[in-house]
Amino acid sequence: MKVTVCRKEHFNAAHRLHNSNWSDEKNLAIFGKCNNLNFHGHNYELIVKVTGQIDPDTGYVIDMKLLSDIIKKNILERYDHKNLNLDTEEFKSKIPTVENIAVEIWNILKEKINKQLEIKVILYETERNFVEYPSY
Amino acid sequence: MKVTVCRKEHFNAAHRLHNSNWSDEKNLAIFGKCNNLNFHGHNYELIVKVTGQIDPDTGYVIDMKLLSDIIKKNILERYDHKNLNLDTEEFKSKIPTVENIAVEIWNILKEKINKQLEIKVILYETERNFVEYPSY
Amino acid sequence: MKVTVCRKEHFNAAHRLHNSNWSDEKNLAIFGKCNNLNFHGHNYELIVKVTGQIDPDTGYVIDMKLLSDIIKKNILERYDHKNLNLDTEEFKSKIPTVENIAVEIWNILKEKINKQLEIKVILYETERNFVEYPSY
Amino acid sequence: MKVTVCRKEHFNAAHRLHNSNWSDEKNLAIFGKCNNLNFHGHNYELIVKVTGQIDPDTGYVIDMKLLSDIIKKNILERYDHKNLNLDTEEFKSKIPTVENIAVEIWNILKEKINKQLEIKVILYETERNFVEYPSY
Amino acid sequence: MKVTVCRKEHFNAAHRLHNSNWSDEKNLAIFGKCNNLNFHGHNYELIVKVTGQIDPDTGYVIDMKLLSDIIKKNILERYDHKNLNLDTEEFKSKIPTVENIAVEIWNILKEKINKQLEIKVILYETERNFVEYPSY
Amino acid sequence: MKVTVCRKEHFNAAHRLHNSNWSDEKNLAIFGKCNNLNFHGHNYELIVKVTGQIDPDTGYVIDMKLLSDIIKKNILERYDHKNLNLDTEEFKSKIPTVENIAVEIWNILKEKINKQLEIKVILYETERNFVEYPSY
Repeated sequence: MKVTVCRKEHFNAAHRLHNSNWSDEKNLAIFGKCNNLNFHGHNYELIVKVTGQIDPDTGYVIDMKLLSDIIKKNILERYDHKNLNLDTEEFKSKIPTVENIAVEIWNILKEKINKQLEIKVILYETERNFVEYPSY
Repeated sequence: MKVTVCRKEHFNAAHRLHNSNWSDEKNLAIFGKCNNLNFHGHNYELIVKVTGQIDPDTGYVIDMKLLSDIIKKNILERYDHKNLNLDTEEFKSKIPTVENIAVEIWNILKEKINKQLEIKVILYETERNFVEYPSY
Repeated sequence: MKVTVCRKEHFNAAHRLHNSNWSDEKNLAIFGKCNNLNFHGHNYELIVKVTGQIDPDTGYVIDMKLLSDIIKKNILERYDHKNLNLDTEEFKSKIPTVENIAVEIWNILKEKINKQLEIKVILYETERNFVEYPSY
Repeated sequence: MKVTVCRKEHFNAAHRLHNSNWSDEKNLAIFGKCNNLNFHGHNYELIVKVTGQIDPDTGYVIDMKLLSDIIKKNILERYDHKNLNLDTEEFKSKIPTVENIAVEIWNILKEKINKQLEIKVILYETERNFVEYPSY
Repeated sequence: MKVTVCRKEHFNAAHRLHNSNWSDEKNLAIFGKCNNLNFHGHNYELIVKVTGQIDPDTGYVIDMKLLSDIIKKNILERYDHKNLNLDTEEFKSKIPTVENIAVEIWNILKEKINKQLEIKVILYETERNFVEYPSY
Repeated sequence: MKVTVCRKEHFNAAHRLHNSNWSDEKNLAIFGKCNNLNFHGHNYELIVKVTGQIDPDTGYVIDMKLLSDIIKKNILERYDHKNLNLDTEEFKSKIPTVENIAVEIWNILKEKINKQLEIKVILYETERNFVEYPSY
């Protein structure tokens, strides 16, 4: 049977929820205070789960130090202390909801981690709001 | 692939574990101090998970503000600051274990949330005792 | 300089906030849903802080196992899985607010712990509501 | 002896650390990635501590529901889902470090709470960085 | 549908990651500071999840007090306040990574719990590094 | 009025409580399972609090990045992934209780931080056992 190893990291970012195809009124009606023109921000807590067989020589599925380094290089350098709407390409067009950020993180990481390992992402926007991708 | 969005809420309630078909001795033997005649209580932490496709216009699976409102109206108004045994219909006959409360919450919420979305409930009775329904 | 050692324990109890000198209307106006006739409940998290000199032979201010045993014997056996209003003498007359419970716990513990050690109590009624006694 | 009651609330905001009297180079050298032109953000956790005597009629130092309402009306409405640098007057001139935000919150709240009660503010910018004002 | 009940326990242990088939240089290169000759240690947080049908007479899948006792007797007595490399048989040959410890715990517990119930183990080595076995 | 800034760090270490002036029987009687010959270990959570005036140019009492670097260089490099009894000088003679470790950390840090700033150390050995030095 397979084992899932999990690594928790965090980043702090500003964002704004806004659909540029909509009027200001509709944006305010749908997104409420998350639509604030001048942005607001969050401490995002990110858990990356990697599933595979244990290597009998190391006792590791994946070295968590390596996993941490992959997350830092590919996700934290990209999003930490950034404005997701203004400082990244991907969220110029796509709305930076916690759902869309989690999918984007998964898409980035699956290219950086051994294809034989399955990846899952859990992303907390606040302690009370979080997402899992893909679903169980 | 689908995304799961999760919303955490809480309520405080009193309860007592007691099977009215059993003698007092058997109730005490099975339920121990949870059988205390005059009730005891808990801070219940509730996580509701909703799984579906991301709406490309909003970036949402479901608006978490809406999800929070559904939980508040249907669960918190019903159970918060209540005695589960005395103040609700469902736990007059059914024993209010954390298992049974979680199933009841799921049954209530599935009628209130779009049928195309899957629901899962996690309910903490204490930090050390919690349940998931349905199971993964 | 002195060191403070801190031990965390917890208990679960039911209670009701009600002043028997007041009308039902006034009780409801002042205490709101905390006045619910049939009680509600909480997971109380209790931190007991003990301040004194380090004993050079043990490296301890007080053995935390001993401190834990004192709290269990004198506080948890008294309040855990109880109805504070109905199952205790002290809260038949005094309203079991988190303030009053903390003072009561401090009064009990100061008789059970070496008088040369100072005691402080922190009591969480919920993650968001807690008290400290005595104040710093 | 006095009791301290504590209420925890939270708000999410964007900010940027920047001293307009300094060159861009000096700002980057001093504030690092916190100086990012387009802002970043945080989930701020705020604990307000109020110290006083217990009112024997209510068992309260202050009604925590009232305390929560005062914080929501005066602090959360002002800072939640806002850009501290652009959306507030006080941080147009003053740098919105966690130290300065905590002092500002204390200054606002002391005008709104009974002068016989002492107030203290604890503000978490992240789980690892937080401040207390005034100091013990 | 089935319900999953979860019980959280903890133990404190020393360990060292070292493959005796390798040179000291290779061990240091692979395991870094986790290879420290004199051991280091952790507070392990253990969650055991048990899945099955609710017994209508008790409202329980399994009595969590019983589940806690099984974990204490079979896991905590074995690992708590121990050196995993020196004080246990199983980790004399197998490297005590968090992956291998989780699998070992699952192997022990499945012999002690009713075969009709499914078991899953989550083991935290630190708040940021944890594993799940078997994988979802 | 002064502000206190707080920085949280962590380290993982092995230790054993043992007084070499005592018999094995007395050590076992006093220290119980903490006396285990082969050591056990903990995830230590360390909070360092620094109190002083806010610098009006930076809005900082002390740059928390600098504070974090001082803690890492002087405390984490010394204790993280170490055996406190075998790998350090100070705990060859002194018993590495959480009280004594906290005092030692304070003694080290006060030499490394501006003398006009007051320092306080909070050290968690487990979530339930922690110390503060100096006392409030």
